[in-house]
Amino acid sequence: MNDLAWLKNAWYVAMLSADLEAGKIYKRTILNEGMVIYRTDHGHLVALEDKCPHRYAPLSMGKLCGDNRIACAYHGLQFDATGACVYNPHGNGRIPPAAKVKSYLVEEKYGMIWVWMGDADNVTETPTIDFLEPGTGYKLNKPAYLHMATPWQLIIDNLVDLSHVSFLHDGLLGGADMIGTRNQLVQSGNTITVSRTMPNVRPPEYSDLIFHADGRPVDKQHVVKWIAPSIILLDINVTSPGASRDEGTGVHAAHLITPETEATSFYHFAAARWGLIERSPQEEEEIEARLAAARRKAFAEQDEPMMRAQYEVIKRYGGEFKPAMLDIDVGVVRWRRILADLVAKELA
Amino acid sequence: MNDLAWLKNAWYVAMLSADLEAGKIYKRTILNEGMVIYRTDHGHLVALEDKCPHRYAPLSMGKLCGDNRIACAYHGLQFDATGACVYNPHGNGRIPPAAKVKSYLVEEKYGMIWVWMGDADNVTETPTIDFLEPGTGYKLNKPAYLHMATPWQLIIDNLVDLSHVSFLHDGLLGGADMIGTRNQLVQSGNTITVSRTMPNVRPPEYSDLIFHADGRPVDKQHVVKWIAPSIILLDINVTSPGASRDEGTGVHAAHLITPETEATSFYHFAAARWGLIERSPQEEEEIEARLAAARRKAFAEQDEPMMRAQYEVIKRYGGEFKPAMLDIDVGVVRWRRILADLVAKELA
Amino acid sequence: MNDLAWLKNAWYVAMLSADLEAGKIYKRTILNEGMVIYRTDHGHLVALEDKCPHRYAPLSMGKLCGDNRIACAYHGLQFDATGACVYNPHGNGRIPPAAKVKSYLVEEKYGMIWVWMGDADNVTETPTIDFLEPGTGYKLNKPAYLHMATPWQLIIDNLVDLSHVSFLHDGLLGGADMIGTRNQLVQSGNTITVSRTMPNVRPPEYSDLIFHADGRPVDKQHVVKWIAPSIILLDINVTSPGASRDEGTGVHAAHLITPETEATSFYHFAAARWGLIERSPQEEEEIEARLAAARRKAFAEQDEPMMRAQYEVIKRYGGEFKPAMLDIDVGVVRWRRILADLVAKELA
Repeated sequence: MNDLAWLKNAWYVAMLSADLEAGKIYKRTILNEGMVIYRTDHGHLVALEDKCPHRYAPLSMGKLCGDNRIACAYHGLQFDATGACVYNPHGNGRIPPAAKVKSYLVEEKYGMIWVWMGDADNVTETPTIDFLEPGTGYKLNKPAYLHMATPWQLIIDNLVDLSHVSFLHDGLLGGADMIGTRNQLVQSGNTITVSRTMPNVRPPEYSDLIFHADGRPVDKQHVVKWIAPSIILLDINVTSPGASRDEGTGVHAAHLITPETEATSFYHFAAARWGLIERSPQEEEEIEARLAAARRKAFAEQDEPMMRAQYEVIKRYGGEFKPAMLDIDVGVVRWRRILADLVAKELA
Repeated sequence: MNDLAWLKNAWYVAMLSADLEAGKIYKRTILNEGMVIYRTDHGHLVALEDKCPHRYAPLSMGKLCGDNRIACAYHGLQFDATGACVYNPHGNGRIPPAAKVKSYLVEEKYGMIWVWMGDADNVTETPTIDFLEPGTGYKLNKPAYLHMATPWQLIIDNLVDLSHVSFLHDGLLGGADMIGTRNQLVQSGNTITVSRTMPNVRPPEYSDLIFHADGRPVDKQHVVKWIAPSIILLDINVTSPGASRDEGTGVHAAHLITPETEATSFYHFAAARWGLIERSPQEEEEIEARLAAARRKAFAEQDEPMMRAQYEVIKRYGGEFKPAMLDIDVGVVRWRRILADLVAKELA
Repeated sequence: MNDLAWLKNAWYVAMLSADLEAGKIYKRTILNEGMVIYRTDHGHLVALEDKCPHRYAPLSMGKLCGDNRIACAYHGLQFDATGACVYNPHGNGRIPPAAKVKSYLVEEKYGMIWVWMGDADNVTETPTIDFLEPGTGYKLNKPAYLHMATPWQLIIDNLVDLSHVSFLHDGLLGGADMIGTRNQLVQSGNTITVSRTMPNVRPPEYSDLIFHADGRPVDKQHVVKWIAPSIILLDINVTSPGASRDEGTGVHAAHLITPETEATSFYHFAAARWGLIERSPQEEEEIEARLAAARRKAFAEQDEPMMRAQYEVIKRYGGEFKPAMLDIDVGVVRWRRILADLVAKELA
């Protein structure tokens, strides 16, 4: 996977808000950089390089000590939220100029902790994901995440590729009668949208469950949007054949991929359903449980093993990845080209 | 082990026929090349590079689909037995010229699946092993195999070296009164034969079991033949002191070594006994069980740990292997020299 | 940790005498060199390179066979205590000149087996550790050792650094009211001594236990001596406030660090108490048990995880270790400078 690096000037999801308890200390690696993340008892968020500059002890072994500070467990040096050493408890108390660590810009949004990995001078607005904005009335599921033993590019490849669902997820997210469908690609700046309209098809399990769960044919639409460098928004729309979109139902999903190292990634996931079919609470609960099981199966039993296997093959060929291109690969080709340009600009 | 590569233009045993169920898909690595192996329901054998050229998914995750084809699990591309992509189910169905994989020549012989790892233009006859030919009347044991965490060269070294049996296999395959025996080496083309005649010795356990199992002295002979690059035929002959070979008994064994990677190997084994001593079925069954236990002990508790330990030492010295030569090493020296010549010719 | 190598011309502890049973064979790695160590039934100590020069089988798989010899398990070649092959049981019995292995100078002292890793021509006296000399009357504890997954330099750093005890070992070996204390450094040749006097402090658990175990304030003194390259002598002295040293009690401890590889080490430990407080045997037994638990906690739950974590951080930065220096680092800076000079001289 040497052909494609990552972008440093970007916001990446570091962890879920629900997993970040105030007053506790968390350890994460993003783009190969180790960091310690904490939320103080006063609610302030801090992300620092996970290395005490004194003896290279990880600050994530330390403890919080007021004023948004963290104290190293080895010798008690204290660092503030800017990464500066502000207290040396020993001897003359002198703090050498080198005693500072990198501080990361960190924001909380949509129930997730986002970290800016580039220079602070280049910082942009945090990403906007409409369906996750407060007050939209969507029924949100609880965000979740997986740790993946695959390079992040393969995950993006998999998500912008709408054609694999009829094979890898046959019966679950796709099926044989959707194979002939053409993918439409639209690029807008550094965002691409790939879509696929599948009229009058036998609904795969997931589409059936969010709709009438009766197995009758539906019109289906998949729309996937890639926002550079690693945000994927995936819409699944289902209606009765010939009906307008508004008469149907659907799912908005955000797949937020964070490169951990060249070989591993974090995969964060949030979704919302709209146009819910009226059901009794018991029925709705059962449907939600079956949807969760279907998502888990697609991610953990189908996508993840496939991507791990691809990565093993790529490694066997010394990291060289020269795929034979099909016309279904428009999305894959386009996002990689845009990213390569962005990376080249960033390095220039 | 950098001093000695492997030969590509050769037939290697990929697996045992008994382990290859028709309609199922198998994954093997030989000479660092990943391959998928299958036997179709019509009995056709196929061995293909284990990489879908489209997205580098392993074809061994796919499924068989008629006409000797395999379909990739990721996007359903189908490949025929020649390795050509013959079906793209998507969009316009166009198949790019790059959508093909390497196909290996594959043959079944002696209850084993053999793969030709070199260019098809250079293909030779599959190896002939007389005692495994049908109709010879030998009582064959069931072929077996071991996966070994050692380079293949150390396994060949061990097999052509008849002198180690009195130490590493003392009491089991050799003993103190055989140490003085000289090894005779004969070379014929790219085949070497090392033999050792040991008159009137106390029989080690294995020789005793195949003969009268009474511990009385025997004349013993070991004859090992190396056929380039990785076939070893080992004969053990036992008679009463002074008797002619025809009055005795013996074992023919084939040790078929397949390099998996530089560091690991498959070890396939087949053997036949001749001149069987008359025994009741119960006695014979007990003898066979004790012979199997002796073989297992020699392989798995003596040879294999020794070769793994050698390999650890070789790695500690940075892969350098400059052994001090003794006159017992005639076989080791000769086979390595022949192989080095063959490899040099192949590379030229 | 590329900035600092190790010294070859030095005595290193290979193992504890108590672990070396006569007639048995032991395998150790020191400075990346594999060796086999044994004590013959006649009491002779031998340390040889752990590689039969014939086929690179480890001699540590062999067996002892009289005259201080070891026989290789693979082909029975025998080596004497000088590392020369003295017996080839095969064929003409010829021993090629290359059939010899390195022999290490080895001495037993203070209940430990010491090996000289440099050229025999450069050999020096084995180190002298006064409190371990016979006849001094000290109450010695049983020597012990730990295998550490950290480079040896980090262990020395940790030991010559008296300031970390108030943080990493807070309450156990140090405490908040000792932080202000200055470290005194004295260099004498290639030995440095760092000391710290802490009057009228609340005794941490370990100091309290060796004294009156009543929690009352004490005068404390820590004195650490580094003897190049890897011997640390640590004294802890405790008295009632204002009393002379002789009226108090203390512990002499020797920490003997042996680099195994660049990344791993052996940590040998011996200690003696003096000026013991009079107690009933039962009370004394209980105190000893609590002291052992405190030592175990400090080593295994505090120092060792911290050093492993430091090493992980150093590896993340590609092995680069450029610590920001504080004035408490006088010992760390000095011993590394002396060692660097000694290594440079050795290489010159």
